[in-house]
Parts: sequence; structure tokens; C-alpha cells
Amino acid sequence: MVKAVLFDAYGTLFDVYSIGALADIIFPGRGHELAACWREKQMEYTRLRTLCDRYADFWQVTSDALEFCCEDLALPLTDTHRARLMAEYEALRAFPESAPALERMKSSGLPLGVLSNGTQSMLETALASSGLRKYLDHVLSVDQVRKFKTAPEAYELGPKAVGLPVEEILFVSSNGWDVSGATWFGYKSFWLNRAHRPVERLGVKPDAVGEKMDDVARYAIAMGASPAALTT
Amino acid sequence: MVKAVLFDAYGTLFDVYSIGALADIIFPGRGHELAACWREKQMEYTRLRTLCDRYADFWQVTSDALEFCCEDLALPLTDTHRARLMAEYEALRAFPESAPALERMKSSGLPLGVLSNGTQSMLETALASSGLRKYLDHVLSVDQVRKFKTAPEAYELGPKAVGLPVEEILFVSSNGWDVSGATWFGYKSFWLNRAHRPVERLGVKPDAVGEKMDDVARYAIAMGASPAALTT
Repeated sequence: MVKAVLFDAYGTLFDVYSIGALADIIFPGRGHELAACWREKQMEYTRLRTLCDRYADFWQVTSDALEFCCEDLALPLTDTHRARLMAEYEALRAFPESAPALERMKSSGLPLGVLSNGTQSMLETALASSGLRKYLDHVLSVDQVRKFKTAPEAYELGPKAVGLPVEEILFVSSNGWDVSGATWFGYKSFWLNRAHRPVERLGVKPDAVGEKMDDVARYAIAMGASPAALTT
Repeated sequence: MVKAVLFDAYGTLFDVYSIGALADIIFPGRGHELAACWREKQMEYTRLRTLCDRYADFWQVTSDALEFCCEDLALPLTDTHRARLMAEYEALRAFPESAPALERMKSSGLPLGVLSNGTQSMLETALASSGLRKYLDHVLSVDQVRKFKTAPEAYELGPKAVGLPVEEILFVSSNGWDVSGATWFGYKSFWLNRAHRPVERLGVKPDAVGEKMDDVARYAIAMGASPAALTT
């Protein structure tokens, strides 16, 4: 039985494509390479810092990762470039399908929230500018516990804020690693596999997989109404 | 004062280039792309499993990462391919400079060891086949603590086995993340930056940086004899 739904933010509700597009305007022909390095390095830093208990917030880690990648790719990063690229994180577009799907779930009576590596301020700004804030009962940043996902302490924020047992909360992410961590932690999990990536080989499978936010809404509502509905 | 030296294995003592070369024989024109994905995913899995306390050993994680990457890159992985690629990990060549540098450090009276994410069996096999085993007093696998570097429990193996305070042990790695983790943990650290990569933006710097194993030997011996020798 699903009684609430929590979403990852970046790549799940928010479309991060524009970051690569902006990078490609700043560094013509190199933007997508930079965006790929940036994302990879950002993730690496969240994990290394969490493993070693050397937390710095997502804004800092994101800025650090950008600096590393620009040096690694020999792209000259000015303060203006950095400011523009970082600002893009706060002005991300939502995927067009995010709002209608959230609306449907919300109308069906499901409490909704975000549980993200982003800082509270990054999340609130992006949610406001994308128009998604009004659908959400909870905006949870790992900043509270100073550990990034996939640390259990980060996932623990969900059941604590929502006030439900973890297995009654559906966790939705487009990131294979995130959905694996959430499933390990005990959430019911949905992998929004937009990019048709292979399943992670981590010995754990999400409870459900789909390609569109609409698939999430259908699943969550059916599981909310009655788990039996899904067998049809 | 440096009283012992510990080395990372893969990429530091052992040359992992042959893995990409073999992959390129199996999948012509795609081997280096596969090797890059494989390495990245292997590291990701070690971190996710450690963060979530879902340890599987390095052999398993390496095999899992290979499987993911082949599917992601649409490369058909047969059992024979997998066996050949995995076997390469046990038959890695040492960098030609590894043996003479270890020999010099050993002759100067410094106890030497390896501290690696690899399993004991992977390490012993590769050290035997590369001829480096005889220089090493300690072959330490994180398998003992079921956590991968950069978890503190993994780095803790060093001072425990060597019987010296961590700040008297020099930790040497070609991996920026590894040298950062070791420095955070308290080792004296040397970044063997063979590939001329940028310094990691993690708010911590290695104590020394060089490009060749010879630089490591010179540093370790000087620091072993008298820290003052380094100021000249």
C-alpha cells in the first residue's frame, strides 16, 4: 500500500538538459562533454565526502566539481561562467509532464514530497521557478543530516517527515543508483528510466519501472487505492 | 618522519592499460570506451555498496560493473569475454618503474605494503605474476573490513597492520580520490599523478605530488632519513 510519494529532484522532476545546453553556449562544441564530467564528478564528491564524513553542501560540491572538470578539459572558467552555470541549477525547467502527474497524485489524496541532495535553498528556488512547489507537502534536503544519498541517514528523512513506515512510501528517481539506495533502505521504489539505461548490477531491483511520469502517477494511484488493482 | 610506505595497487603499482587494450581486441574500436565506463562503474559500485553497508567483494563488483557497461554500450558480453576480461585483472603488468623503486625503498629499511580495494586473492595473484610480492611486508585487502576505500575502516587497516601511528606512514596512490581519503584519514600522502590530472577539489591536498615512482622513492627515503633533508 502506497500512502505517500517522494521524488528525487535533479533529473527526476527537473530537466537538467539545459545545463549542458548552456555549457555548450559558453564553451561551443564542448558543453555536453563538460556537463557529463560535471555530473560524474559532482556525484563522486558527494560520495567521497559522505564516506569520509567530510560534508560540504551540494552547492559547494557542485561548484567544486565544475572547477575540476573545467581544468581537466582545459576550458577556461571565468567567475562569470561559473556564476551563470551555477545559477542554471536554480532555474531548471521541470519536465513538462511533472506538473500534470503531480497534480493527479495530489488530487487522489497522496501526500507528495521531494528528497534531494540539493540544499534547501537550491530546492526551494528551483521548485518556485518551475511552478512545482504547490504540489509538495515536503521539501527535504539531505543538508539536515549532512550526508548525501545513498547514506541511510539521508533516506531516513522521508519516513520521519512523512510520518509513515518506509514501506508505505513510494520513492521515485530517474537515477539507478538512487533507486537502488532507496530500495535497500526499505522504500517501495519506482525507477523512472527515461533514458533507457540498463538496470544497475547491485543485487537489488526497484519495485516498478516506467519511462514517463504518467507511469509513476498510474502506479502510485493504483497502489494507493489498492495493491490488488495492479495485478490487472 | 616516514617509517613505512603503503601503496594502492591498481593504477599505482599495476598498469591497468592492458585491460583497455584487451577490451579493444574483443570489441574492436570500442575497448577504451568500455574500459572507461567499466572503471567508473566499478568505483561507483564500491562507493554505493559501502555507503549502504551492502558489501560485495571487488571481484564481484568488477564483474557486475563490466556487465552493466557492456549492456549500456550495446556490446555483447559472452561468458568467454567476461572470463578473459576478468582474468586480465589477475595478470596485470607492474609499471616497469615499480620494482626498482620498491627495491630502493626496501633497501633503505622502509617496511612496504599494499592497501587495496582488491580481494586478497586478486592481490596475491597479481603481485606474484608481476614479481612485486617479494618487496612487500603487508598485503592488505579491504575485504577484511567489508568496506571499500575511502571508508575510514579501510584506511585503518594500514596503521593496525604496520604497527605505527598513521602520520608516520606514507600512503601512495595515483588516484586523486584515494589520496584525498588517505590524507583525510591522517596518513602522510603522496599523489603519484602519472596522468597529469587536476587536483581534486575536496578541500584537502596531498603532502607531496610527483609523476614517477622514482619521485616516491626519493621522497620516502628522504622523509625516512630526516624530514629536514626535504627542505633543501
